[in-house]
Amino acid sequence: SDNTGTVQLAVIPGDGIGQEVTPEALKVLEAVDSGVKFEQTHYDLGAENYLRTKEVLPPTVLAEIRQHDAILLGAVGGKPNDPDLPPGILERGLLLKLRFELDHYVNLRPSRLFPGTASPLADPGDVDFVVVREGTEGPYTGNGGALRVGTPHEVATEVSVNTAFGVERVVRDAFARAERRPRKHLTLVHKTNVLVNAGSVWWRLFEAVAAEHPDVTTDYMHIDAAMIHMTVNPSRFDVIVTDNLFGDIITDLAAAITGGIGLAASGNVNPDRTAPSMFEPVHGSAPDIAGQQVADPTAAILSTSLLLDHLGHADAAAAVEAAVLADLSDRRPGTTRRTSEIGDAIAARL
Amino acid sequence: SDNTGTVQLAVIPGDGIGQEVTPEALKVLEAVDSGVKFEQTHYDLGAENYLRTKEVLPPTVLAEIRQHDAILLGAVGGKPNDPDLPPGILERGLLLKLRFELDHYVNLRPSRLFPGTASPLADPGDVDFVVVREGTEGPYTGNGGALRVGTPHEVATEVSVNTAFGVERVVRDAFARAERRPRKHLTLVHKTNVLVNAGSVWWRLFEAVAAEHPDVTTDYMHIDAAMIHMTVNPSRFDVIVTDNLFGDIITDLAAAITGGIGLAASGNVNPDRTAPSMFEPVHGSAPDIAGQQVADPTAAILSTSLLLDHLGHADAAAAVEAAVLADLSDRRPGTTRRTSEIGDAIAARL
Ligand SMILES: CC(C)[C@H](C(=O)O)[C@@H](O)C(=O)O
Ligand SMILES: CC(C)[C@H](C(=O)O)[C@@H](O)C(=O)O
Repeated sequence: SDNTGTVQLAVIPGDGIGQEVTPEALKVLEAVDSGVKFEQTHYDLGAENYLRTKEVLPPTVLAEIRQHDAILLGAVGGKPNDPDLPPGILERGLLLKLRFELDHYVNLRPSRLFPGTASPLADPGDVDFVVVREGTEGPYTGNGGALRVGTPHEVATEVSVNTAFGVERVVRDAFARAERRPRKHLTLVHKTNVLVNAGSVWWRLFEAVAAEHPDVTTDYMHIDAAMIHMTVNPSRFDVIVTDNLFGDIITDLAAAITGGIGLAASGNVNPDRTAPSMFEPVHGSAPDIAGQQVADPTAAILSTSLLLDHLGHADAAAAVEAAVLADLSDRRPGTTRRTSEIGDAIAARL
Repeated sequence: SDNTGTVQLAVIPGDGIGQEVTPEALKVLEAVDSGVKFEQTHYDLGAENYLRTKEVLPPTVLAEIRQHDAILLGAVGGKPNDPDLPPGILERGLLLKLRFELDHYVNLRPSRLFPGTASPLADPGDVDFVVVREGTEGPYTGNGGALRVGTPHEVATEVSVNTAFGVERVVRDAFARAERRPRKHLTLVHKTNVLVNAGSVWWRLFEAVAAEHPDVTTDYMHIDAAMIHMTVNPSRFDVIVTDNLFGDIITDLAAAITGGIGLAASGNVNPDRTAPSMFEPVHGSAPDIAGQQVADPTAAILSTSLLLDHLGHADAAAAVEAAVLADLSDRRPGTTRRTSEIGDAIAARL
């Protein structure tokens, strides 16, 4: 955002319900009193665009997007097993491409069981934690390959790449976030007993940065054990730091136990601000329910709260969150509202 | 087992509660009428043995174990972060070494919510599925390495290795198991949209083997989406086939939602019988509660049911399971029994 209070916002509604929830998020962003004006540029990217143009993310479009202050993304992804959509082409060519190119090394995913929201857990307790998922390394680098493809002798590899540089910066970010929270507790989740190479660089840097933060208490959990703690006692977590793949897995579980991915927001953050950060709901494009105005736009709306906070508008971020909270506590089981009605209701509270 | 009805059983109680639950499993194996005699050889392996001898699994011991008909394992693992135990040394040098050397390519993990057992889920439904976890490939191969270790320029890699040979055989096993179950449904869990090399060999062979099994219905789920289904509607699963790491993660979640790892049994199976299969509870050595006779031996006991079944004694296997079921339905909240009391009670029912 510049001195005149204008934010250049790149908007990528994407596919399926992404096209339905994004307008609601924008509605809320317009309604909230943030003191800034959002100048939007819409980009038509995703499965539909690919099927039409055979292009995923042209370099010129990436260069344009890079000039913005922030990105709001709906969801990308076509119909499952569409023969015209090579597997992974959108994920790796668009979503992950943006995360990697714009150096979104902090993939921020807060999980909170809002009052009035149902959890599949019988006794969830007071759940309020945030996962700091590494966003630019690990098994997501696209390293690896395949030999003798399609034959009985095929060998396919996936290489998880972990650098001291990449691990230290995300661990530092997680400690800083833990330090700003009342409980000041940070849990490292990994699988150090099996993935010993990656595990040892994570472990070493976690310990090193911990020594600089004596006020933050820490613990370590294997990813498999974390599954158990997340279902049996999720209120024990405050901040979790983990790698890209473990973070992908644990944040969907976290979303599930706090009311579902209809409510889970995320920020792909570049804390060094060398490129725009990107905010998106955790959910996908859900082609099965697309176009019916039945998708819940709450996750997309909560993502604008993370966006506002990242841009330095903490009050506006809090106001969006409060409006969502109020709307959630007013929801009555058995009543359903259309996507746009939920957006209207939340915007009206601002 | 030979013609005279003798089974040569290698017993590795291991560490911590492994030493407490294994005698109870053996008690039950003695009590059940299987028509065979178990000749036990005990092997002192694990953290304690390593700290004493600095040896993990001497080649001569491995060669001896290989001569047995089956292996019963308690749990291995020392105190967390014991400076005398290099990270992963037991996991990779003993547990995974046995799984890989003895070609345990089917890591079988049934999950069933037994009547009377509490689940952390409010409404779990009728949960009864089995995970066929690949056991000899994926990110568990120990491939990968590290460069400039301990410096700010460290690069550490973990290589997931997936072969058509390895994937096809475990997928075939899973289809065969699905075919023997009433619902005949098989779910492939992977992350094909990101791990495209590994994903495509899994996908291709899953589809190819599916074509040979028109009676088995199939579906596919990303590992992150599986987290949600597992907590929101676990009764939808019948058989799941997945890779080594995803299987590790999902089976702990499966155990959590079906009453905890105190009840989760597993078999590391070599279906080709070129080497002994190994049966073990999913839980670890739990050093924090070891030596107090408070561990639940049920998972270890249920593992003997898998062992009996693998050796062809289906009736005895069913009898052990029935005894456990009866014991579980008689458990009263608030009452606690010692490890050996639970073993006695289950053995007494046989
Ligand atoms: C769509 C997919 C590539 C993505 C990921 O794995 O990161 C999604 O699951 C997420 O969590 O944002
Ligand atoms: C102890 C560890 C190496 C092991 C694994 O990761 O396979 C355990 O978690 C399991 O699931 O049996």
